[in-house]
Amino acid sequence: MAKKVILSINAGSSSVKVSVFSAAQGTTSVPTQLAEIQLSGLTSPPCAVKYTRGATNVFKDKEVSNGGNSKDSTGKGIQNQQDAFRYLLDTLVQDEQLAEIGSAADIDIACHRVVHGGDYTAPQTITADTYHHLEELTDLAPLHNSSALAIVKLCMSGTGDQGSKVGNSDEKDEEGKSQQRLLLPRATNVACFDSQFHATIPTHISTYPIKPEIAKNNGLRKYGFHGISYQFITESVAEFLGKPVGETSIIALHLGSGASACAVRKGKSLDTSMGLTPLAGLPGATRSGSVDPSLVFHYASDVGKMSPSSTGELHISRAEEILNKESGWKALTGTTNFGEIASSEDPRHRLAFDLFVDRVCGFVGSYYVALRGEVDALVFAGGIGEKSARLRREVVERAACLGFRIDGKRNEAEVDGKDVVVEIGRGEGRTHRTLICMTDEQLQMAKQCAAMEELWR
Amino acid sequence: MAKKVILSINAGSSSVKVSVFSAAQGTTSVPTQLAEIQLSGLTSPPCAVKYTRGATNVFKDKEVSNGGNSKDSTGKGIQNQQDAFRYLLDTLVQDEQLAEIGSAADIDIACHRVVHGGDYTAPQTITADTYHHLEELTDLAPLHNSSALAIVKLCMSGTGDQGSKVGNSDEKDEEGKSQQRLLLPRATNVACFDSQFHATIPTHISTYPIKPEIAKNNGLRKYGFHGISYQFITESVAEFLGKPVGETSIIALHLGSGASACAVRKGKSLDTSMGLTPLAGLPGATRSGSVDPSLVFHYASDVGKMSPSSTGELHISRAEEILNKESGWKALTGTTNFGEIASSEDPRHRLAFDLFVDRVCGFVGSYYVALRGEVDALVFAGGIGEKSARLRREVVERAACLGFRIDGKRNEAEVDGKDVVVEIGRGEGRTHRTLICMTDEQLQMAKQCAAMEELWR
Repeated sequence: MAKKVILSINAGSSSVKVSVFSAAQGTTSVPTQLAEIQLSGLTSPPCAVKYTRGATNVFKDKEVSNGGNSKDSTGKGIQNQQDAFRYLLDTLVQDEQLAEIGSAADIDIACHRVVHGGDYTAPQTITADTYHHLEELTDLAPLHNSSALAIVKLCMSGTGDQGSKVGNSDEKDEEGKSQQRLLLPRATNVACFDSQFHATIPTHISTYPIKPEIAKNNGLRKYGFHGISYQFITESVAEFLGKPVGETSIIALHLGSGASACAVRKGKSLDTSMGLTPLAGLPGATRSGSVDPSLVFHYASDVGKMSPSSTGELHISRAEEILNKESGWKALTGTTNFGEIASSEDPRHRLAFDLFVDRVCGFVGSYYVALRGEVDALVFAGGIGEKSARLRREVVERAACLGFRIDGKRNEAEVDGKDVVVEIGRGEGRTHRTLICMTDEQLQMAKQCAAMEELWR
Repeated sequence: MAKKVILSINAGSSSVKVSVFSAAQGTTSVPTQLAEIQLSGLTSPPCAVKYTRGATNVFKDKEVSNGGNSKDSTGKGIQNQQDAFRYLLDTLVQDEQLAEIGSAADIDIACHRVVHGGDYTAPQTITADTYHHLEELTDLAPLHNSSALAIVKLCMSGTGDQGSKVGNSDEKDEEGKSQQRLLLPRATNVACFDSQFHATIPTHISTYPIKPEIAKNNGLRKYGFHGISYQFITESVAEFLGKPVGETSIIALHLGSGASACAVRKGKSLDTSMGLTPLAGLPGATRSGSVDPSLVFHYASDVGKMSPSSTGELHISRAEEILNKESGWKALTGTTNFGEIASSEDPRHRLAFDLFVDRVCGFVGSYYVALRGEVDALVFAGGIGEKSARLRREVVERAACLGFRIDGKRNEAEVDGKDVVVEIGRGEGRTHRTLICMTDEQLQMAKQCAAMEELWR
């Protein structure tokens, strides 16, 4: 069967990650990862790039200047997500040992992780119409969608010029394509949404108790995020447990610099801690999580005004900036490195750690009841979920009253990277297992593309 | 032992309730309620008054005009909390059968329920200093403290005139008292705080993950409210279970037009759902409860600006007004009457009901874990907690996975009003009981005054 080369593109506020897969159509075979390349440090120069091809570490922590000294192929420094993506794409194309990508024209599908997908319940092929709708959604999640949209725009227009318009007919040749200008001349662009997995959340859970007409007009409801990850976790845990996905119920914790919890009932999202935006729920590296909605009005005056860092394309209130960018454990401790926090006995670090454990345990208890106690497993994922044995131990020990148990030795063992799911609980016969899942959003995106019939006609 | 007459004054945004007690010093005897009088409808005229003396219903639903037609004793209509208190006090004084209050000078202690007590951990005798500090706290909770403060001001100054100053020496005679002008010439004014019971919440739970210096300077932390009620509930349940208060751990739900949950560990508040202000946590009649802190910025523009209904004394942003006054089940259904919502199958009512059950169950699960499963009882209180058998049934059935069970017959039985605590669970031998507690904030305030040594010297 014909295989296609898929780029899974995951752009954050400070980094861009691109994974290259070779995939066959359908859901039976798992796409094969050919390479993975990541540029980080966009907001804290200099940028660093790491690149692995199959089992080979091509380079790690290669420094790339944001300024004008070390030029990338365009002759400019790397200053934003578009620059980063161009640089990463160039590196992939120029790597002669990555045989599947001889030129950019070998890329069949470019799949973009878009945080806020509004009412979309499935991945979308990005047309001019889709793109404009995604732009509108950015108003709801300016801090979260703009990174991905910048790269989508670059791929769609081929220029990345702020003034160019997607789907502007002036840029098209007679066949409606402006191939010579497109960065990925043969690729179909696809958007995968972090919110789509949560489309199954029942109305009484996703509704905010506010005026329904305003909620409807302004799209104000719980959307939830980290959904690409939760879908991966659900499918992987089901396979690990030998159960059909539709019979698998878990409490999943995606804990990274952005952190959330999800109750999955019979394979579907029942509830999640993030809300209208990723701000709600658990605190993160620079995010407050849920706080009294009055709080920000007592934090500073004029918080409703636009932040000075707003741009023509990015409208954000000072309040949202404070709660998304100037809070979290960075505010409490000075560092965004949770590993440092978890291993320190500095009282400020201890406070941040205990606070995080408290909030995580709150969701574990809450979702245990939401699932009526029918929970196959408590699953840790994300950077902190995978790496912090201490956090896992404290959470599971507090949840002992629900029937979860941790095996100290398994919990402390180094994750070897081969297994997607690892047992860290005691007593395999238990109803309630305790697991770690090495979640892989890029792979999940490639799987979703492999399953989209329209991409394979 | 000498007895004192205590007025427990509970002022809300739309009502003022005054309970009259006769109390002896100390904690061994319970103050005796002599009378209770309530005026309601301040924000939805005409006002109605109900008055009971001992077992006698003196009157019920007596209509009192807010306008100029039916005059109260001051010759003006009843338009605010001060007018209401004057009217209620006059009624008590003029009731010849209430022998203990022959004149206002017979009142020894006037105890005011103040919602936000900041860092106060015990009731306070109100001096000029205390009063000024309470005024400052009102900035943090303008919607919640101003009703009580208006009455405190009236009692302290004797005039209630907006221009008069508490403690202003011009108004005092040579002994520092302006007795002829004082409404309660012999009474000591005491403030009991709804936040004080929660002073025991550990720092890692009460801290918001925001910049610590701003949190400290602006007093931004979880305070929690309904504490007078939770203290009453804790003491009453301990007595019902035959356990010392210090060994009693419960999950208490105070569910009324304002609703909250509280985890009580060994007699002390461990966590509660309200936060910096009463807005956080569960939704209420007109309150959204916890929502994504970003939400209000997508609800309307300029929400950070002062509301047009702000006054010189009441500073409130449009955002806080929306979330406190224009949300909750009123917004979802059009009514603030939860009984109507619970008994209707109208889809909007059903949505509001299911939403409330979902949020309540979330806290039950969360606090079960916070208490490590060591929970003597799940306790329902407040208007909805006492009256809605359907709500109790749905909550307890969902919490069956934690070991709670409801007895259908007991749950449906009419509460007779004689018992303070009623069992509605199945199987008394269970670790986890399910109870209703007829909470009584005014009695709890009188008990706190009886225990304050300085009031009895």
